[in-house]
Amino acid sequence: MNNFEFKNPTKILFGEGQIENLSKEIPKNSKILMLYGGGSIKKNGIYDQVKEALSNYEVVEFGGIPANPEYSVLMKALKLIKNENIDCLLAVGGGSVIDGTKFLSAAALYKGDSPWNLLTDNKPITEGMPFATVLTLPATGSEMNSGAVITREETKEKLAMGGPGLFPVFSILDPQVIRSIPQRQLANGITDAFTHVLEQYMTYPTGALLQDRFAESILQTLVEVAPAILKDPADYNAASNFMWSCTMALNGLIQQGVPGDWAVHAMGHELTALYGIDHARTLAIVGPNHYRYNFESKKVKLAQYAERIWNIVEGTVEEKANIGIEKTEEFFHSLGINTKLSEYTDEYSETGSIVSKRFTDRGWTGLGEHKTLTPSDAEKIIEMSY
Amino acid sequence: MNNFEFKNPTKILFGEGQIENLSKEIPKNSKILMLYGGGSIKKNGIYDQVKEALSNYEVVEFGGIPANPEYSVLMKALKLIKNENIDCLLAVGGGSVIDGTKFLSAAALYKGDSPWNLLTDNKPITEGMPFATVLTLPATGSEMNSGAVITREETKEKLAMGGPGLFPVFSILDPQVIRSIPQRQLANGITDAFTHVLEQYMTYPTGALLQDRFAESILQTLVEVAPAILKDPADYNAASNFMWSCTMALNGLIQQGVPGDWAVHAMGHELTALYGIDHARTLAIVGPNHYRYNFESKKVKLAQYAERIWNIVEGTVEEKANIGIEKTEEFFHSLGINTKLSEYTDEYSETGSIVSKRFTDRGWTGLGEHKTLTPSDAEKIIEMSY
Repeated sequence: MNNFEFKNPTKILFGEGQIENLSKEIPKNSKILMLYGGGSIKKNGIYDQVKEALSNYEVVEFGGIPANPEYSVLMKALKLIKNENIDCLLAVGGGSVIDGTKFLSAAALYKGDSPWNLLTDNKPITEGMPFATVLTLPATGSEMNSGAVITREETKEKLAMGGPGLFPVFSILDPQVIRSIPQRQLANGITDAFTHVLEQYMTYPTGALLQDRFAESILQTLVEVAPAILKDPADYNAASNFMWSCTMALNGLIQQGVPGDWAVHAMGHELTALYGIDHARTLAIVGPNHYRYNFESKKVKLAQYAERIWNIVEGTVEEKANIGIEKTEEFFHSLGINTKLSEYTDEYSETGSIVSKRFTDRGWTGLGEHKTLTPSDAEKIIEMSY
Repeated sequence: MNNFEFKNPTKILFGEGQIENLSKEIPKNSKILMLYGGGSIKKNGIYDQVKEALSNYEVVEFGGIPANPEYSVLMKALKLIKNENIDCLLAVGGGSVIDGTKFLSAAALYKGDSPWNLLTDNKPITEGMPFATVLTLPATGSEMNSGAVITREETKEKLAMGGPGLFPVFSILDPQVIRSIPQRQLANGITDAFTHVLEQYMTYPTGALLQDRFAESILQTLVEVAPAILKDPADYNAASNFMWSCTMALNGLIQQGVPGDWAVHAMGHELTALYGIDHARTLAIVGPNHYRYNFESKKVKLAQYAERIWNIVEGTVEEKANIGIEKTEEFFHSLGINTKLSEYTDEYSETGSIVSKRFTDRGWTGLGEHKTLTPSDAEKIIEMSY
């Protein structure tokens, strides 16, 4: 097990009816900017619940944060924060709204020239304006971590930021919100959380027995509840296990003391930036082929995964490992997720070299848990994914 | 899954060599009271490591906190805190030293008449003097939770306190400390952590799939590493998994959204208060018989436990559940832990009625996950444990 430092101060309020506790958590006299996305919260009743819970506060609203939160849109919200003397941010949405809110939390206190530097500086963010979240779409884990990914259409970039100053003060997780989520987004959420776990688990054995089992616990639970969630998103018990699994998949816990891969995300982000493919689907496109390409270094963990998640107890390490990859792909297919790039775009024939060049231009020489995956390797993995 | 609120702000610094990072975490100019137990830290080198890491601070020392931290001893430390204008506490020890430090953290800021009221008031502690820990004995999880148990010899009482103000600011977990722990205490630590998980898991099914699996992950890991730990406490990898498992067993995570039992602890505490039996050993005495006595309401979880921890896949629910109890007892025996009260004291013949009377006198009418276990039930369980 590797040395680690772990701290996660976010308070979680989990369960039905927790939205009404918003006013217990937000200091009196706060001036709140409520941020949300395309307006689905106005149809499913969450907007009304939040507004009612905040009836004793001064609340300014900023809607329209798109999936893959866009820098130019967020810059408008930043202007509002400054003009209205906002002192507290409340994200009501999924990972995109929460990530956008994290950027705003940091940008609101940023003293430098351009807030874009927060994404290019590669420095941990140590302070931000206090913010909280009401999660409406389980998937990214952003509600209980300190990371964010921001997109800039102008330059076709999608970059990450984070640091100890960017944990939500609290997050409200009411599994009832899942009732009104479209199938497509539910499938994305399951795929996203599943891949988050794999990025922290599918590396090489380091003797971190407990972390491995925690990771496997999340994978097993996602596999168990996925059919129930897709069949009936109003199944409260399935929804609550799904929601808590997504949070636990990326709140830092299972990453402690073990290597992380994250090359699947790095490649996936490029596919979203280039073609606008849903984030989760890019992970399903790249992930299995990443494991095929890096088979030798990952086969021991792949075999353990095949055994513990898919009950593949017969065969050699290599045989089990291969079945593990196939089962992963089958699982994504069972959710209605396509796993070939050509199923999403006709303009794929140069994608491998385009991504390779973008990695090289950004100075990225080695990704993955060994920091040895080169832009040329990424090119081949993406070509395997056409 | 039940609704829950969860927040755990303690920072963990885990791994070899982390003690030297003490000075990175404690604010400059702090006046520190360093608290420890019987002095084993002076023999195993931890005292020297801590003193060296704190060489730039003003440090006052208070040693001699006994196992089952004793109120009258702690009152002397409290006087020192006030006389020396201490503003920061550092526990260097196991659960007893840390629990004692938590009491002192609360008592240092307490405005009422007698600090003993902190234990009898049953009010959550919301503020305390900042404190940190260097864990020397993995077992209780006190290094990452906000609870403490204090003993008062004068009245033969052992009572609990806790609240959001009593989380350590940070805790240092260096698995190398395990090298010098005597076998008896290692066996106690494994038993204690194992029972902590059972108290939060061995109740009735609530559909909390992920929490169940996390609990099982800890149990599986403790079972896996126990022989290696006892054979060679210097096995760093086994030690690190043991240490992290003990912390995760009682840092609040696996308790979220599920019922807790904790009657085993309530009964065990009395056996320690009456006969001075090691805390962990009282749990091993009472636990299996508690499960036998409450078999009907716990058999479904007992069977799940038998299946997932002990690979008992054949048989009825009742058969598997019974084997699960037997396996638990065998596990304790494999650690060298006796599971009958008569193996610890000759004066056991009235223990059941004594404990029952003490529960009644304290006004406790119902323990366990259903709050239906009466003092008379406790009497029978303890009689089964003779």
